[in-house]
Amino acid sequence: MMNNFLVKVASTIEKFNMANKSERLLVCLSGGADSVTLLLCLYELGYDVCACHVNHHLRGEESDRDQHFCEKLCEKLGVELKVFHADVVGYCKEHSVSTEEGARKLRYDFFDSIGADKICTAHSLSDCLETAIFNLARGTGLKGICGIPPVRGNIIRPLINCTRQEIEDFLKERGQDFVTDSTNLTDDYTRNKIRHLVVPRLAELNSSLFGSYSMTADRLRTDSDYLESQGLEAFEKAVLPKGYDALCLRQLHESVRRRAIMHILEKEGLTVSHDSIEDIDRLILDVGKANVKGGVFAVCSKGVLSFVKGEMLENSTIRSVNVSGEGVYQFGNREIEFKIYPFDGKIANVHKKFANCCLDYDKIKGEIVVENRREGEKIRLVNRDFDSDVRKLVNKYFRLEDRSSAVILKDSQGVVFVEGSGAAERVKIDSETVKILAFTIK
Amino acid sequence: MMNNFLVKVASTIEKFNMANKSERLLVCLSGGADSVTLLLCLYELGYDVCACHVNHHLRGEESDRDQHFCEKLCEKLGVELKVFHADVVGYCKEHSVSTEEGARKLRYDFFDSIGADKICTAHSLSDCLETAIFNLARGTGLKGICGIPPVRGNIIRPLINCTRQEIEDFLKERGQDFVTDSTNLTDDYTRNKIRHLVVPRLAELNSSLFGSYSMTADRLRTDSDYLESQGLEAFEKAVLPKGYDALCLRQLHESVRRRAIMHILEKEGLTVSHDSIEDIDRLILDVGKANVKGGVFAVCSKGVLSFVKGEMLENSTIRSVNVSGEGVYQFGNREIEFKIYPFDGKIANVHKKFANCCLDYDKIKGEIVVENRREGEKIRLVNRDFDSDVRKLVNKYFRLEDRSSAVILKDSQGVVFVEGSGAAERVKIDSETVKILAFTIK
Repeated sequence: MMNNFLVKVASTIEKFNMANKSERLLVCLSGGADSVTLLLCLYELGYDVCACHVNHHLRGEESDRDQHFCEKLCEKLGVELKVFHADVVGYCKEHSVSTEEGARKLRYDFFDSIGADKICTAHSLSDCLETAIFNLARGTGLKGICGIPPVRGNIIRPLINCTRQEIEDFLKERGQDFVTDSTNLTDDYTRNKIRHLVVPRLAELNSSLFGSYSMTADRLRTDSDYLESQGLEAFEKAVLPKGYDALCLRQLHESVRRRAIMHILEKEGLTVSHDSIEDIDRLILDVGKANVKGGVFAVCSKGVLSFVKGEMLENSTIRSVNVSGEGVYQFGNREIEFKIYPFDGKIANVHKKFANCCLDYDKIKGEIVVENRREGEKIRLVNRDFDSDVRKLVNKYFRLEDRSSAVILKDSQGVVFVEGSGAAERVKIDSETVKILAFTIK
Repeated sequence: MMNNFLVKVASTIEKFNMANKSERLLVCLSGGADSVTLLLCLYELGYDVCACHVNHHLRGEESDRDQHFCEKLCEKLGVELKVFHADVVGYCKEHSVSTEEGARKLRYDFFDSIGADKICTAHSLSDCLETAIFNLARGTGLKGICGIPPVRGNIIRPLINCTRQEIEDFLKERGQDFVTDSTNLTDDYTRNKIRHLVVPRLAELNSSLFGSYSMTADRLRTDSDYLESQGLEAFEKAVLPKGYDALCLRQLHESVRRRAIMHILEKEGLTVSHDSIEDIDRLILDVGKANVKGGVFAVCSKGVLSFVKGEMLENSTIRSVNVSGEGVYQFGNREIEFKIYPFDGKIANVHKKFANCCLDYDKIKGEIVVENRREGEKIRLVNRDFDSDVRKLVNKYFRLEDRSSAVILKDSQGVVFVEGSGAAERVKIDSETVKILAFTIK
């Protein structure tokens, strides 16, 4: 009679088309419960399996104990084991990455060097849910909410539908021991916080939390896969000899367009981030230029999005206009009208944009100057108890190509107004205001 | 200078196209912080606002205190208030629904009776995140992960981008008091568990949890909206005079097809559930019949999916075949071959299905009978310490149209084998087994 757990692992492998018996599978064996279970399962299911252990030498004697355990286990099973010794600390210093990231990178480099058909990692359904919650807490998209993918390239995760409890029960039933990483039991890391403090609370709301999540993840993955394939297809259709078909991209639904943009950014070797996607998206929907990387500009013109090297001369001009009183002032291609009113104590139900354009006239020190943004300028906005970086405020509210023409007002003591963000606390209108300086920007 | 909070509410209304100033907005006023804030904001932003309070008379004096508070607040603002008195207990008894559901239903009935253009509820970003987590814990799809929709029909939620903290700060700044529902501060309800025990842990992982979630929800909603619109479009295309174009549905991606099926189920007045969607999905991809509701069958034939009333005569036949020894037995349109082997003490690496089809010959009491499922039958499967319902096991592993031909084996003491689920504990092979009864089902 085949063990229920083995049946579950076998059907996960089948469901996600993970591997066939002619392939050589490499198990990443740490010696912990998950990877020991993975090795045993694949071995018992009759796969052509080999193992690999990476000694990170990060935990002194414990690291060597783990290596020894793996060696004994593989010897007992007659499974080939390759042991790597990694200098994580040195690697991380050299490449300026975190310990966790460095260890991960080194591991995968080793795995690749073995040349197995598939690399098998022991991520469980518990890991998958924890990752989904972690991503939700940090901010994510659909892909992140799906947790850990069952298959990614040649990496497969046959335990992705088994919970940590099921894994422990399986080992107990077999009388198979395993090693425990002492850092796993503490709450030092965010993952452990989710594992020990969040998941148990959710399990109190639903006793079959993991079963439910498994179905949820399946549904979300199906949606995500569909959208990803739509995005890739749209990207491929949009590729032109020297750029991308913006008209074609413009017709797509935002969901698909954003995913196509991710492929464009990747192809151009640019950072894929919320902001970079937004910047390109705005260009596609409109026209213009955006600085996407030092010296690289995305340009959308005549229905073609392209990436060019060069300077945005026109926009990077530093402008400065002195305001000598009421009237209309020209600022680049924009017009600003200033007026001075007596203040009757009430500003109620005025239009939002207009309301932002009123300052207490008597609190202004010296003359007003209209400028575009400069490096290093700060403003303390109304009702804030901290200074904001003017450049960041402008970046937040303006498209890349418009940022250098955003209107900044300064008096002799510094910035008093930033277009899109509003006035400084020190010139705000209050119960003692007598005259107001009102202005509208066109 | 317009308050930051008001600006945020105004831009949420604008972003989601919630309302314009010519519409009459009804605020559902409980007297709590959220709804008081909502009323104040809409009033100050210059909307045509009226209010409505439902006294559920569920919390004695506290209920009356809340009503009185709302009356005074509206009087102060000069806002029209309509008070309803709801007999929730009676309503719930009559309609057999939970208190929470009954109260909600009654509230919306009252709201509709007022005939405002839009109904405004005070759900916040905090509520939205809590709902997303609640749905994640209970099992959900993409729509559920998005939490609470900013707009649903004529219901709008202008505070959906404001956190509970921001709401409380706004009221504090105004010196505006509010009432507190004593049941909200306890951990009696699941929602409060998420609010007080889960969300604070996540906020420890990301100090701008709500800002991140707001962006996450935006992205997920965009994806969800796109998929929903694709599903609706596919449904509309598939509608035929007497059914649905199964060939057309079959070509869709699972993500879109499942959503189209939800529309089909809704149109046919059938329950929309994971199982009902699965059942119709299988029919579309294959052919056959499925009982979708007492007396209603979904039939897929010649490329058309249709819903008919009637009986599934052929499949509902009760069949029973006596097994008198080795040989091949006919069971409906299926064949079962029985063999008896001596047992050498090892069953290793046998095929999963085959392994399931071995019983300890000597533990079988009396003769074996092959039957299809009957009501009320139980089996204690191998390694389980509880009895399973045979009907449920069959439902779990078989499509609707195949369930009545699933093979059940019985001896004189009851069920010993259920196809798809395996053998009973009492006939399992162990170290004392001498002969095995092996069988294969074709």
